[in-house]
This record gives sequence, C-alpha cells and structure tokens, in this order.
Amino acid sequence: MDGFAVVAEDTFGSSQTNPSLLKLIGESKIGELPTTVLRRGETVAIATGAPVPQGADAVVMVEDTKRLDTGDVEIDSPVAPGENVSRIGEDVKQGTVVLQRGRKLKPPDLGLLVALGRKTVNVVRRPKVGVLSTGNELSDTSPGATGKIADVNRPMLMAMVEECGGAPVDLGIARDNAEEISEKLRQGLRAADLVLVTAGTSVGKGDLVPDVINTLGKPGMLVHGIAMRPSLPTGLAVVNAKPIISLPGLPVSAMIAFSTFVQPLIFRMLGTEPDPQPKVRAKTTKRIVGVPGFRTFIRVLVRETDGKLYAEPLRAPGSGILTTLTRANGIVVIPENLEGYDEGVEIEVQLFRPVERGENAGRP
Amino acid sequence: MDGFAVVAEDTFGSSQTNPSLLKLIGESKIGELPTTVLRRGETVAIATGAPVPQGADAVVMVEDTKRLDTGDVEIDSPVAPGENVSRIGEDVKQGTVVLQRGRKLKPPDLGLLVALGRKTVNVVRRPKVGVLSTGNELSDTSPGATGKIADVNRPMLMAMVEECGGAPVDLGIARDNAEEISEKLRQGLRAADLVLVTAGTSVGKGDLVPDVINTLGKPGMLVHGIAMRPSLPTGLAVVNAKPIISLPGLPVSAMIAFSTFVQPLIFRMLGTEPDPQPKVRAKTTKRIVGVPGFRTFIRVLVRETDGKLYAEPLRAPGSGILTTLTRANGIVVIPENLEGYDEGVEIEVQLFRPVERGENAGRP
Repeated sequence: MDGFAVVAEDTFGSSQTNPSLLKLIGESKIGELPTTVLRRGETVAIATGAPVPQGADAVVMVEDTKRLDTGDVEIDSPVAPGENVSRIGEDVKQGTVVLQRGRKLKPPDLGLLVALGRKTVNVVRRPKVGVLSTGNELSDTSPGATGKIADVNRPMLMAMVEECGGAPVDLGIARDNAEEISEKLRQGLRAADLVLVTAGTSVGKGDLVPDVINTLGKPGMLVHGIAMRPSLPTGLAVVNAKPIISLPGLPVSAMIAFSTFVQPLIFRMLGTEPDPQPKVRAKTTKRIVGVPGFRTFIRVLVRETDGKLYAEPLRAPGSGILTTLTRANGIVVIPENLEGYDEGVEIEVQLFRPVERGENAGRP
Repeated sequence: MDGFAVVAEDTFGSSQTNPSLLKLIGESKIGELPTTVLRRGETVAIATGAPVPQGADAVVMVEDTKRLDTGDVEIDSPVAPGENVSRIGEDVKQGTVVLQRGRKLKPPDLGLLVALGRKTVNVVRRPKVGVLSTGNELSDTSPGATGKIADVNRPMLMAMVEECGGAPVDLGIARDNAEEISEKLRQGLRAADLVLVTAGTSVGKGDLVPDVINTLGKPGMLVHGIAMRPSLPTGLAVVNAKPIISLPGLPVSAMIAFSTFVQPLIFRMLGTEPDPQPKVRAKTTKRIVGVPGFRTFIRVLVRETDGKLYAEPLRAPGSGILTTLTRANGIVVIPENLEGYDEGVEIEVQLFRPVERGENAGRP
C-alpha cells in the first residue's frame, strides 16, 4: 500500500478527531533496500511494493494520513501489527515443496517459479516414439496417380504422439517383407524409447509383423489380439526392455488403439497424468449396439437442442471410414458385458470436440 | 482383400461342392494402374490395396478360392457386387466440405487431409498478443536482492496466451509514469492485435493506465471495474479498432480475468471455439461464500475419497497468494445472486488439473 510505515502500537486509538502524530524520518523507495531503522514515534513514507524498514511492522494507507508542514504525519486510523505488509514466507515457507515431481507445468506454475526466482527447472525428457507404417499399398507421394493409397496413419499418429507430450520419430513406410520391417524396427528401437508399427497383422498379410518382432529380442510379443472393437488386432510387445505396440492398419482402429494403449504409456513414461477429460451425459438418438464379449468404442456426434444433449452414433460399414472420426465429437464405450444402449437412454460420452449447437456449430 | 477380382455375377451360386471356374488372365499389383479389362468368365489375382481392374466389381478372398494347375481359379463362395472393394468416393464424395472453417485441426483431421492428398491447407494467423506489466516495484532480474518484486504476471500471461493459440509479444515492464506506459502501449498497438496491460489501475496508483489509454485514441476505455471477485479492477478498452484489456496486478486476479475475458477474445480472433472444458460435480467440504452482487471465483481442490468427489475451497487472505492457484485443481463460480454454497452440497467444478487421489495424487 502507498502510505507510511509505522510501529503499529503508535497508531492504536488514533482517529480523525484524535490523530496520532509521528515524525517523518525518510522514505522507503521501490527497488532500494532501506537503511533507516524505525523507532517508536517515527514513520517513513512508503510506496506499494517498497520494502518496509527495520522496526516497522505495519503500513497506514495514505488515505488515512495527513502530511503536516512541520514534517510530522497525522495518523487518522489505527493499524494492527502486520497490516498492509507482505511478510517474507507469507505464501511459501522456506523448505516447502511447491511443485511435485511428475506435474505438468502450466502457466500459474511458471508464475510461481518466477516468483521464487527460479530461472530454470529440471524437466523430464520427452519420450521418443518411433512411428512405422507397413504395407506395399502405402505411399507418401502423389497417391492415386500411382494406384497407391496415402499413408494416413503415420502423420495422424505422429500428431497424436506430439499432442500427449512425446517426440515423434518418423520411421517411414516398410513394404510387406520381413527384412524391410525388421530393419526399420531395429532402427526404431535404436532411435526411440517406444516404437509403434501399424498394420501387417491382419489375416491377409499373415503374422508378418509379430513374427519379425519375435526375432528382434526377448520377450517379444506379449499380447496379440485384444477383446475390443474396433482395434482387435492390436499387439503389445517388449524387445530388450523397449515396448513395441503394433496398431491396426485402419485409421479409426489405429486411433482408438492409440488412445487406449499408447497414450497412457507415454504419460507413464513422462511420469505424469493426463489432463482431466471432458465428459457429458447425453441421450441416445437411436439404439447403440456393441459386439458382445468385446469392449466397443462407438463414435458419436453430441448435439445440443433446447438445452438438452443428444448423442447420435456414427456407424460406418468399416472402421476405415475416416470421416466418421472427423464428424464425431465424442466416443461412447460399451463394456464387454453389455449388449449396448437403447434409444432414449442417458449415457456418458467422452468429448474431444465442442458440442454441436444449431446450424453454425463449430463457429462462435 | 488378398484374392481374386471378379465380375460378381460369375460367382453367384458357387460353393465348395459346386465351385465356379474362372480363367486367370493376370495380376493387379499394388502401385500399378491395371491395364487389363476383365470380361465375364475371367479373373485377376489381386492384393489388399491394389486397384481393381476395369470390368471387375468384386473381390473373392483368397481363402475362398483354389488355384488350379490349368491356370483356372476355383471360386468356392459367391460375392455380391461391390464386396471387398473400396469405391472411389465411398468415404468422401467430390465437392463435399470435409472440414469447416474455424475448426481447430486435430490428428484425425490431418489424417483426412493426407488421405485427400492435401499437403498444405490455409490456416488462420495466430493473433499477436502484447503483454505489458506496469509497476516501479517489478523486476525481471534478481528480485529480492534489489528490494524489488519478480514480475510474475508477464511470463504467466504469455504462457496463457500461447496455451490458447495466440502468439505472445513481450512488451516488458513500464514504470508507473504516463510517458513510459504510453510509449509501451503504442509499441504494443503497432506490434500486436490485442494488448494486455497489468496493474496500474488500483487505488494507490490512481487511474494512470486508464488515463493513458484514453489519450491513445478512440473510443478508449469502455469498461473499468467489473462486478466480479477477484479481478474487480479489470478494464476493457478499444483504441483505433484494437482491443486493450487492463488486468489486475495480483497474479490470481490477472489469471482469472484472463480466463474470463482474454481467452474468449483470442478464440473469437481465431474464429474457433475452445475445446470442451472438463467439469465434475463434487460435494463441498465446507461452506463456500461469495461476495453478494459480485460473480465470485473460488479456487478449490477436488479430491476423490471412496469413489466420491469432494471440493475443498482454498481461501487465502489475498488474491495475491499464488500457491492457492498451484494447489487448486478447479474453480467454482458463485453467481452474483447467490450468497454461496453450504457445506455438503453438490456443486459444479471446472477442473483444470486431475482430481487428487490419495497420498500419491498427481503421480500414476
């Protein structure tokens, strides 16, 4: 506060009709450590943020004072010891742990570090995540013209790695042969902390990727095939203490397997927790059916109509239909022991985009 | 699918006991546009992802076929027209708007763009947001030693600007005098699309910042003082069609005013919507009181105990106490027409960090 630094006791009982009189002996300036020592009956002019001189234990606001020509200061209002003074250690005591290991630093944390004079702080290295696509049909350049298909998974998965705090390592495309897959996976194991490989595990291509992984080191494939839909062909492997996750080739399956297995693993490697995920409750606009015995992930579009939320399942023939993913703003999980949800029941939806509102949804 | 491209009609009625016989006339390879034209009674070997030759309208899976030494292929199972074939335009028809203007591009959107062969896409320029602190007491270098205070707001607000998609422009610290503030604000208006200035609007310092803003151009200050706590001294101004927002000097107030006014403005400038915000319902562990007539923002710590969520208000003497912000994982808003919430009632909390669970909360 702008005002006068005082010994609080000197102000007790003072009022406008019966002010205390203190002798002005100096000024405490911002950015200068005060040299004066205050004694009873004395005061020092002080600005907001300036250090309080030794001996003073309170500040009277300028509004409650009157400066006299004699050099004395009239105090019209009492202050308690500590009033209008920020004490050292008031917010953070010496020795306090202010930020726990494993915490994702956000703007207020940066503010606190700056307040504590910490210019640098040790952080966890971002885990490197290798991303390899396999498939003779895939290409990065002018797909269509060559009769090949664009590799959708690699750029999508690399963006997902980045989004959850990992550093993607591009391992390119391997054709469907053991040597090429083996070489690229070895390269990935050298360069990254975790390797993702898509496709190469569906029936048509045999067990090419799992077989190759098993030749790379111990223990090799741990899990191959998971009771979930989509993303059934997901595989989990460890090779010489480094994890490899094989993801299905269809982009929607790859994305759902990533969210289910890769994202938690990256957070574990970072030693942190993901941010809380937004969830809403919404009414189904039609029956949503799962695959019995499998945990089923259904893409939905959540709309607000008359203040109520409705979830419309976006079911496409195959999980390769990308636009159901870009049209969806949420995911509904049907547990393996449930057949599904009837029309008109309220269910929980994980939201990853804003709820759609009217015609102009998506725009403010 | 790996198998044989056929004219579907040729397979009708075929079974293991009564297979159809087709003449193998070639192979469709991945990455090569087929030159053969299929006629009735003919077939072409095909791999997953390879283009279907002209004339063929379905693929029989290799598992349902037998290759004979004669060069013929036995078909053991019928297929319908279109079966096992991805059609052009199946997911996206020509002329379809796949991604609306104003959409924040996420990994599946990138996947879709890649699938469509789009290597580049026009995006909105990140709005430049100038951040200026004012105050004689502030310093960026070795605070404490000089009797000055670290400028917490500038690094915190710049990180917040970045977090919501803006590009922060560092305008430094202006001392509490009109010329210096005026010069830095002019510099900000030249360099940025929006200018934030902290402090300089509290009683002690008079109306220095608002007065300066009013000299810079029309219409100047529009709002000064908002019925909210904290962050009452927030001011909204427009100078020559550029917005200036003056934020309170206390970091907690600055942060809450930023979330309330600056963040929505940056999203508006980006032409997009913020991601959905996670909210939970939790029971109050004690009475939470607002300031009547003001919208009150209370920091809370949400804990999970025995599967239930509890919200503990973190009330500190001043809104300058930074650690209540770093300890909190949520914000509760008390509307201006409510006194507050009683102990033990369920309230809605905006979560910005994970819910605390047991002793090791914050670590997986």
